[in-house]
Parts: sequence; structure tokens; C-alpha cells
Amino acid sequence: MGTRQGQFKLGAFLQNTGHHVAAWRHPDSRADGGLDFAHYRQLAQTAERAKFDMVFLADGVAVRRDQNPESLSRSGQIVHFEPLTLLSALAAVTDHIGLVATASTTYNEPYHIARKFASLDYLSHGRSGWNVVTSATEAEALNFNREQHMEHALRYERAREFLQVTLGLWDSWDDDAFLRDKESGIYVDPDKVHALNHKGKHFSVRGPLNVARPPQGYPVIVQAGASEDGQDFAASTAEVIFTAQQTLQEAQAFYAGIKGRLANYGRSPDQLKIMPGVFPVIGRTETEARAKYDQLQNLIHPKVGLALLSGNLGGFDLSAYPLDGPLPDLPETNGNKSRQKLVTDLARRENLTIRQLYQAIAGARGHRTIWGTPEQIADQLEEWFVNDAADGFNIMPPYLPAGLDDFVELVIPILQRRGRFRTEYEGQTLRENLRLARPANQYAIPSYV
Amino acid sequence: MGTRQGQFKLGAFLQNTGHHVAAWRHPDSRADGGLDFAHYRQLAQTAERAKFDMVFLADGVAVRRDQNPESLSRSGQIVHFEPLTLLSALAAVTDHIGLVATASTTYNEPYHIARKFASLDYLSHGRSGWNVVTSATEAEALNFNREQHMEHALRYERAREFLQVTLGLWDSWDDDAFLRDKESGIYVDPDKVHALNHKGKHFSVRGPLNVARPPQGYPVIVQAGASEDGQDFAASTAEVIFTAQQTLQEAQAFYAGIKGRLANYGRSPDQLKIMPGVFPVIGRTETEARAKYDQLQNLIHPKVGLALLSGNLGGFDLSAYPLDGPLPDLPETNGNKSRQKLVTDLARRENLTIRQLYQAIAGARGHRTIWGTPEQIADQLEEWFVNDAADGFNIMPPYLPAGLDDFVELVIPILQRRGRFRTEYEGQTLRENLRLARPANQYAIPSYV
Repeated sequence: MGTRQGQFKLGAFLQNTGHHVAAWRHPDSRADGGLDFAHYRQLAQTAERAKFDMVFLADGVAVRRDQNPESLSRSGQIVHFEPLTLLSALAAVTDHIGLVATASTTYNEPYHIARKFASLDYLSHGRSGWNVVTSATEAEALNFNREQHMEHALRYERAREFLQVTLGLWDSWDDDAFLRDKESGIYVDPDKVHALNHKGKHFSVRGPLNVARPPQGYPVIVQAGASEDGQDFAASTAEVIFTAQQTLQEAQAFYAGIKGRLANYGRSPDQLKIMPGVFPVIGRTETEARAKYDQLQNLIHPKVGLALLSGNLGGFDLSAYPLDGPLPDLPETNGNKSRQKLVTDLARRENLTIRQLYQAIAGARGHRTIWGTPEQIADQLEEWFVNDAADGFNIMPPYLPAGLDDFVELVIPILQRRGRFRTEYEGQTLRENLRLARPANQYAIPSYV
Repeated sequence: MGTRQGQFKLGAFLQNTGHHVAAWRHPDSRADGGLDFAHYRQLAQTAERAKFDMVFLADGVAVRRDQNPESLSRSGQIVHFEPLTLLSALAAVTDHIGLVATASTTYNEPYHIARKFASLDYLSHGRSGWNVVTSATEAEALNFNREQHMEHALRYERAREFLQVTLGLWDSWDDDAFLRDKESGIYVDPDKVHALNHKGKHFSVRGPLNVARPPQGYPVIVQAGASEDGQDFAASTAEVIFTAQQTLQEAQAFYAGIKGRLANYGRSPDQLKIMPGVFPVIGRTETEARAKYDQLQNLIHPKVGLALLSGNLGGFDLSAYPLDGPLPDLPETNGNKSRQKLVTDLARRENLTIRQLYQAIAGARGHRTIWGTPEQIADQLEEWFVNDAADGFNIMPPYLPAGLDDFVELVIPILQRRGRFRTEYEGQTLRENLRLARPANQYAIPSYV
């Protein structure tokens, strides 16, 4: 074991009926949870009761895995709430927990995104975060006036400019711009407004934003891309990285690599929290945990497994290959490259058949699966934390709500007892709980000490 | 008085500190209300207690009236919540009232709009409505990669195609498509999904939407444009028109004109509710009402009045003309034509100076101002209803929250006593309360009787 002290950060990655591809079939999942607000309200309040830092919502702007009617008909993830509307509703029924939504820079405009997240930050009194993604599928392009998916490097170029514009819009108003003096009739100090006047390759945006500077200055910036471009983008601007790592060694290398890049951008290691995804299967005994896992795996239909694999391999169709044979060599695609590499490496390293491979990623989709008793789960989390492989974890319950309840009731108390997790929220905002400084306005006049 | 029977519909048009341009300076307004969720929660719950059909939020995607620092500094409407995030949060703290948000077809994509309103419809169990606007200012264009504002006819052409795509996306799934049968593993019937495959002049959108068909089928479609294009668009597709009319005769002509056009589109008169905006100043006595109105008018700074006028006249700058002289002849602009005509007609008809004109529109921005005792307010509303000038009203309180409280405490009980307004909600959804039928899915197989 390493010797690192302190507490780690926890996100609750909420996804409809749960993360396992067959979650909706589990007897303890809510099969229509994806469009049931009461379901999400319960989940968010459970996570808040346990003092999670944040709930996290993924997103895409197309129906996933609609390649063939057979796999479509068996997917429990095809319809669900839009994240920003859902988190806004959750803001009204929670008080402390952070609210992190995914939104694409490829299929949005910076003015809308800056505005909606600023609005959510006000609704929640400083609890919003934005997971910046560049989108990765052809299906999304076809819903937005394009014939094909935008090329990887161009997506990241657009994302960088998008983020620059968005940060600029959040700085439209100084923090103390609004006087609202009824007597004099002066509502705002006109010297404290800043039009952006951005004219770049991808965007022309004048500003100012029609929302005041968010309570957190900027909503917390989250990033999940693990490609070279993605890591560089994260090192320059992200404050939380949600990442997928399978082994301690890989995770340590990723952790050291990202933390090492921060200095290139004048940033210190604690300005970015690295939080790998973890898919926990928890039993009161090892036998119970194993049985729970097997029960889920047995609920996967082969067509669903193949569609899932294809979605993780840039759309490559494996249906012509034998299920119990090896993964063939694959051509390079224009999809999510780091995801493809992760899945291919896993197959090669563990010498898996196609069936074994889809079973291996059916839960966590390339994230780390851990299973066992509550003590064993806590041990596995702590191991990565003390050995500089993670600053915290994004918990991906296999099925919902029961999978989150298990973690909250059985694992959280152990982590708290060991001093690895908070028993009360330290601050009011997501930034304060993550111990991230509130960024200064880029237009602020520097003070000369 | 006419002889029309029945009850009318009421909307609560909520706008930050209130509708009067100097509302934020009023002692009974909440000056920072535009970004205070507790303020809006209180307003929405007040309106729901009074059984209003809906709350209504306007929108624009730029800071308004930012022409000069002087008027900017005195405007209480420059920063505020984004409507869809705000209404989503209000959905979580209300149970019955409709939630209508404005969103622009000029600066959005149909997939996003279809998705967010479908999501809001699920969050609220069928209480959402979309006020479809085409945007009207140069300032908005400059925030969205354009050099100038899109031409009026082209905006409406785009709006029609936008709406067609959005309705198609809401029909992506049959109402009974989702089986969610845990035993067989069939989540959705693949014969009940419909890709849109739209390829038009403005949009190419494949679909399907990643949200199931909304509880209301379609969120209620609201429209507010009063130009020839706008009226025609409304007659073909809108279910509620929010309109600005100053006199009974004008309102009757507009009402008859719109209702008469519906047959051109195979629609009956009761499929579209016409709800003019009304700005009520209520006193327990006439003297008190008059004093309230004068108090507000005296809070308007001339620079604010001129900027307001300019905003209503397509951006034309009046600062070189004498305040106490007449309105000059104006050139045609590319702004909101019906708004310009309304304001110009008002000046000519009542022979107003520039100062009198800005005072006249300072509250209601071209909508009808009524003032007096609660009985007089009720009489003025009823007169329009029984004489076929309105199916209901969108109430625009001068200042908030007190202006809404006055209406709810003093006027609503009179309307209820007279049988002109409900005492309990009739239905669960906004459609049911407005007595609008739930639209069939356009892909539904017709039943042969």
C-alpha cells in the first residue's frame, strides 16, 4: 500500500436503469427509470444523503446502437431525459450535491451552453459542472444537418475554441457589476460589463451573456476524452477527469502523465481531480457478490452483446465472426479512438473470445469492474487512491436504484470510518467541496501587492 | 355586453422583477429576482394556488437594449434565467400549472428543441408548452456567428420547417412502443419506431428522437407573431396565441381574423386559444390604482424610455428628437414589424409625444394596460371575453411578486364568483386544462370505422 493521506472524491454516475447493459431486466431495477423523475429524485437524494460530491450524467444526441432492430428492441438505454433539464429539476430538490451534465461542443453553440450552465449554477447556488465532450458517432451527425461525423482533430480544435468562448461569456460581467440601487436607479455599473467580440475559425460571438457571472465563477469543467488530444485538452482546462482504467499500473501511468502535463499550462497537480469510473458489484459475502454478477451477465442477449461491442469499436460489425472465437484485427475508424484501444487491449491481454469480451464490458463499458464484500470494495478503491492512481471515483451502479443503495448503505460507512470520505459537506458549492479555487474573472484588474 | 358563456384561460407572464420598465425600482419588487430561484418558485406556486393555466416565460438570446451605457445601466431586465432550465426546476416544485417557455427557431436546432421540451414534458407529467419565436434583433445574430439578422420571410420559412421537423421527432415512437418486458427481454417494439429522414432546405435530420413520445403527444404550441406571416403560421399550427391588442375593436378584428383562417388548415375555432397580454394595475380604490400607476411612471428615467422605444421600433434612435415633440416618420426595418406598427399606431391614434409614448408602453410594451379596483379589472377582462375578443389573458404583473399577489388575492376570487374562472384544475396536463385534444401520432395507422 502507498502512504497517501486524505479523503477521496466520489461521483454518482446515474444512468437510467443502471450501467449494466441488461440492467433494466434485473428484478431490482426500475425499467422505465430513464424518463421517471421520481426515480432520479430518489437517486440524487440518496447520493446526497451519503455526501457524494456530485451526480454525473452522460449524454449523446442520437439513439444509441440503432444498427439493427434486434439489438434496438433489447436496449434499455435508448430513451432518457435530456441532462440539463433533468439536473435543473434535481437542483430544486437537493441542497448540497454537485450536478454535472455532459454537453457536446460539436453540436451546440457556445452562447447556449454558457447560458444554460450559468442558469443551472444560479438555480443550484453554485453546484453545476459541465462535462465537455466532442461527440463520437455518425448517428449524431445525421441529426444535425451533416452527412458525416466531424474528423477527430477538427472536433478538438472546435472544442478548444468553444471552451474559450464559453469561459469568456461567463466573464461578461464582473462579480460586483450589479448594484441594483433602487434609489439612484442604477442597476448595473456599465464599466463592469465586457463584450467578448470573439471572431475565430469556428465561432463569431459578440456577447455579453444575458446571465450574470455564475456563483462559482465558472461551473466546474469536467473532461473525459483519453486520446492524446483529449488528454492535452484536459491538462490545459479540465478540473475533473472522468477516465476509464482497468489496472492499477495503467491508472498510475495515466495519473502521472496527466498530472505531469499540468505544469505546461502553469497549473498545479491539485487543480485537476482524476476520477476513474468504477462498476461495483457488492454482496454481503463473496458468494453473494459473484451470484449477483452472474445473474446480470446471464441476462445479456448475444445480439445486445455484439451491438455493444460494435458501438465500442467505432461501429465495426462483428456479427459474421464466431461468438466463441477471437476478436479479429480491426481497421482504424473515426470514432472514439481511446475507447477502441481500451477494448482491443482488454481482449488481447486476457485472450478473450468475442462473447467473453462483450460480457467483460457489458457492465462498465471499459471501466473497472470490482466485486466482493463491502470491505473488499473499500479496499479496492483505497488501493488506487493511496497508490496515486486516482483522486476519487465515479461510481457506476450496475442497476438502479438498488445498486446505488448497496454502495451507500454498505460501502460509504466503511470509507467514512477509515477517514477516506467526508461525513459532512465542507462547503456550499461544488468547487468548495472539490477544493477547487473559484477562478478570477479574466477581465479583473490585477491587484499589485 | 356580449352573451358568451363559459370560463376563460389565464397565463401568468413572469418576467424577473415585473413588466414595467422601472419595476425593479419599486419598493415592493425583488430587484435581483431575475436570477433568484426562490423568487420564481414563490411566483409559480402563487399562480398555481390561484389555478392559473400556465406560467409563461419570454426569451431572447442577447442582452437587451445594450445600445448605450446609460440605458444599459438602468435596465432591470438584462440578466435572467434561461427559460428551459428555470421551468425544469419549477416542474419539480409544482404539480398542476402549465410551463411555457419561449425558444427561437432561428438560433436553435430542431433535435435539441424537440428533446428538451419532450424532457420537460416528462419532468412535469405533461405540463409543457413551447412559445415558438423567430427572434427579432441584430444583437442575437451577433451571438450566433452571423453578421446580420435573418430576413423576416426567411425566418418564417425556417420556422415552418423547424416546427415540421420537431413535430416529426416527437412522433419518433408510438405511444405504446415501450413494452419493457423483463421476462422476454424486449424493451421496445422495433416496428413502432419511426426515423424521420427529413431532408429540407434548412434542416437534415434523421431521427429518431432519444426521448419517448411526450405525455401530451406534443407539448402545447404557442405563438406570438402578429405579422401576416406570423398570423398564418399561427393559424396553421399554434394552439395558443399570445397577442398584443389595445382596443376592443382591434382585438375583435384580430380574433375573428385568426379564427376565420383556421378552416383553411382543416382546424376548428376551439383548437386555438387567443390570449392577449394584459398589464393590470390594481388598487383597492380607483385613487389607489392611479397612484400606483403614477408611482411607477415617475420611476422611468428618460434614457430608459428612449431605449425602450427604440427597441420597439426596430432599433431606430430617437435621441436627437425633442422628448415633448411628436414621433417622426420612421423608415421600415428588419425587426418585429407588427410590434413597430402597434407602437406607431398608438402614437398617431392618441397623438402622443415621444415621452408620452414611452410612458404608454413602459409597462406593457404595447399590450393593454388596465387599471382600477378589482371589480373594474374583472369587468375589463370579462368585456373582451364575452365580446369575442379573447379566449383568455396572459397577465403581466407590473412588479413582482406584489403585482401577482394583488391579482391573485383581489381579482381571481371575483372571476371565480362570476363563474369566469376555475376553482379546481380539470385535468392533469396543460392540454387537458386548456381543453386541447392530445394529437395523434402522424405515423399511427388510421382506424377504419
